[in-house]
Amino acid sequence: MPATSVPAPSRYRFAVAPSGFKESLSALEAAEAIAEGLLRVVPDAEIDLMPLVDGGEGTAEALASATGGSLVRTTATGPVGEPVATHFALLGHGDGAARQTGGRGPTAVVEMAAVAGLSLVPPNRRDPGVTTTYGVGELIRAALDAGARRILVGCGDSGTSDGGAGALQALGARLVDGSGRELPRGGAALARLDHIDPAGLDPRLAGTEILVACNPFNVLCGPRGVARVFGPQKGAGPERVEELAAALDRWADVLDAAFSPSAAADAPVPGPAGSPGAWPDLRHGPGTGASGGLGAGLAALGARLMPRFDVLLDHLDLDARLARADLVVTAEGALDRQTPRGKVPAEVARRAKLSGRPVLALAGTIGDGAEEVRGAGIDAYGGILPAPVALAEALLRGREFLADAAEGALRMVLLGSRMTFVPKAPPAPALRPASETPATTATGP
Amino acid sequence: MPATSVPAPSRYRFAVAPSGFKESLSALEAAEAIAEGLLRVVPDAEIDLMPLVDGGEGTAEALASATGGSLVRTTATGPVGEPVATHFALLGHGDGAARQTGGRGPTAVVEMAAVAGLSLVPPNRRDPGVTTTYGVGELIRAALDAGARRILVGCGDSGTSDGGAGALQALGARLVDGSGRELPRGGAALARLDHIDPAGLDPRLAGTEILVACNPFNVLCGPRGVARVFGPQKGAGPERVEELAAALDRWADVLDAAFSPSAAADAPVPGPAGSPGAWPDLRHGPGTGASGGLGAGLAALGARLMPRFDVLLDHLDLDARLARADLVVTAEGALDRQTPRGKVPAEVARRAKLSGRPVLALAGTIGDGAEEVRGAGIDAYGGILPAPVALAEALLRGREFLADAAEGALRMVLLGSRMTFVPKAPPAPALRPASETPATTATGP
Repeated sequence: MPATSVPAPSRYRFAVAPSGFKESLSALEAAEAIAEGLLRVVPDAEIDLMPLVDGGEGTAEALASATGGSLVRTTATGPVGEPVATHFALLGHGDGAARQTGGRGPTAVVEMAAVAGLSLVPPNRRDPGVTTTYGVGELIRAALDAGARRILVGCGDSGTSDGGAGALQALGARLVDGSGRELPRGGAALARLDHIDPAGLDPRLAGTEILVACNPFNVLCGPRGVARVFGPQKGAGPERVEELAAALDRWADVLDAAFSPSAAADAPVPGPAGSPGAWPDLRHGPGTGASGGLGAGLAALGARLMPRFDVLLDHLDLDARLARADLVVTAEGALDRQTPRGKVPAEVARRAKLSGRPVLALAGTIGDGAEEVRGAGIDAYGGILPAPVALAEALLRGREFLADAAEGALRMVLLGSRMTFVPKAPPAPALRPASETPATTATGP
Repeated sequence: MPATSVPAPSRYRFAVAPSGFKESLSALEAAEAIAEGLLRVVPDAEIDLMPLVDGGEGTAEALASATGGSLVRTTATGPVGEPVATHFALLGHGDGAARQTGGRGPTAVVEMAAVAGLSLVPPNRRDPGVTTTYGVGELIRAALDAGARRILVGCGDSGTSDGGAGALQALGARLVDGSGRELPRGGAALARLDHIDPAGLDPRLAGTEILVACNPFNVLCGPRGVARVFGPQKGAGPERVEELAAALDRWADVLDAAFSPSAAADAPVPGPAGSPGAWPDLRHGPGTGASGGLGAGLAALGARLMPRFDVLLDHLDLDARLARADLVVTAEGALDRQTPRGKVPAEVARRAKLSGRPVLALAGTIGDGAEEVRGAGIDAYGGILPAPVALAEALLRGREFLADAAEGALRMVLLGSRMTFVPKAPPAPALRPASETPATTATGP
């Protein structure tokens, strides 16, 4: 029998947990690029790839792939009213959460960006006052048709600000103005909303659990509401922003009147299964502003608004995998003051810090307020651009730039791990107990 | 008597030794920007600023400043033949090398870029076949007028490719074609050069030591000669490049005929003092191609071509200062495959490695072949751009970008110095004595 055993040779373990880079790299492509760069420095490193989704573009496909499920392709109404080719996912046997739902049928993932995303709005038609989530409602019905009785709605990357009004219309609700006429689609028209007639709502909603994966920092109304925070990037000028904000205030009033428990006591409506008892604050509740207020609209129907990472990352065993890493590398298209407000790198850092792991972040753009990400647990961050380039070139060469930047960053980290400190000259001699350890090695602040 | 002494509290010591960033930051500004970024991370760090010059733009001013000398402002012929406001330096008492020259008078620094640099050539007149170093000769004469008997000629950032022909003309040599007529200025005309008449050369050259601070990788002729390597960036198309290469071949032939020792035996000319005994190889000797061949032209007059850093950095005590640093940070506008061929970051790394110091480099552009800098001793490098920007914006915001990048890089380095390694799973269980240290710490490859 051997007297001693040799421990396994120590190898670096890196957790690579990036978001996608919008218009450039999917999360998986970003993870692969980072891994390529890291392996150039440490060819025998163990790398755990964890491409992360945030509910926006690519979420349905990524979750279908991760769970062995499938994508169902269909056609629905796009954000400007014209039909678009779209899809939803039916999750497979790998979806742990689905098993909890027992015999209810498969879990579907409806990614709102796939039918009402900003990239589906032609630049010359970017007016969040008229774009609609009608197609989201159609996709939910298609998922119900496919047998789903649990539906995850992924928010993010939306091109709409209609408070989910279109989705409710597609699910059978009538939005009526003061003359009894159905409203046209879009958020601006909600200023003229008199009441909602819920009688035509799809009765299957009553037996269906709807979970909305959203950024809890987004709220429907007020100074940090969706019209003011996201309206400009969706194409609204200052006046349109205020017009929309007022319309969404009205939307919240009418939703309360139609669906709150006191209203429902008068005329019960088919709410989704699993609705929590307490009626949410549709104006300022966490996530009510998700995807231009889609969160609020679905919450009025009884959907649960959940922090997106809690919903989406459950099947990844993320915390345990991060805890096994010597270094965690995350990435996103941009790091800025929005990052700590629910973006992937901040979530990864938060979870990595549960086990004290060091976190490095890379980004195509280091924007205003990026230094705030250090408070969220990101120890160091850097940009990935090697030279002055236009945005179009940066997007096109994202994979190359990210791989090179990951390589460079790891070389800097390893430089630190190898750094030896020069003994400093002693000051004027003084007494010291012999047992004291000389301070020949400096440590970080 | 004290039994032991207490070492000073350990503090980080950083050596900051950048080049300037062309058209954006002087070397001193670059050093200050880097220091600003480092101090954001370690506010009590000791930072040794060593802005470095390479012979090109800013060299005369920097050396005058470093030695307590002065700048002499004057007017001379610019590279396209029109007068330009220019200057040379007279070094002060801080110049250790000058003291060695005894009573010869002050040392002057003639920076060729200040009178024949590329930035003095209007973009629509960039033809290295016609630009001239005539002003360099005029500045040398002005330095002689000022009493200098030791002249450092700084090369780099030139806009000329005339082999120094213009400088020789300004110093009194006649360049004669087959009909006995003086050649026009510029390198292309040298194809028609018949012989040089040195009779009119300034007689003071005989009592003057001329040291040319040049990149020894630059040679006059052949496939790596100045016409072919630098002609294109100075505005020459492919045909003009070959025409220039042939003209410079002819120039070397005629210089040999006029000034080599066998020629001089027939008709002695007033060569500078301190000329080395051996006649240099004007075609392929180290530095003959410096500044469009100015090195070759001055060498024919007896000037010594010296590796620029040996000439320029002597007064900085560079090696000892680098050896005292925990980390050396260098920088330049671009890192690419030219970097190891005599650029500042490679020279800094070479000297830092004499004492085993770790070296980090930052650059505005990480260009093709940048990975070769690792062979020159640069352990890690990174770009400084935080977002897709145009070159003009990058130049304008250089200080901000460099400071932020230095901060980010140091955070990465310190992340490594603090990085703890996760204990790896042991192999199949076996007996192990209790005294054995588990391998809980991995080290870099």
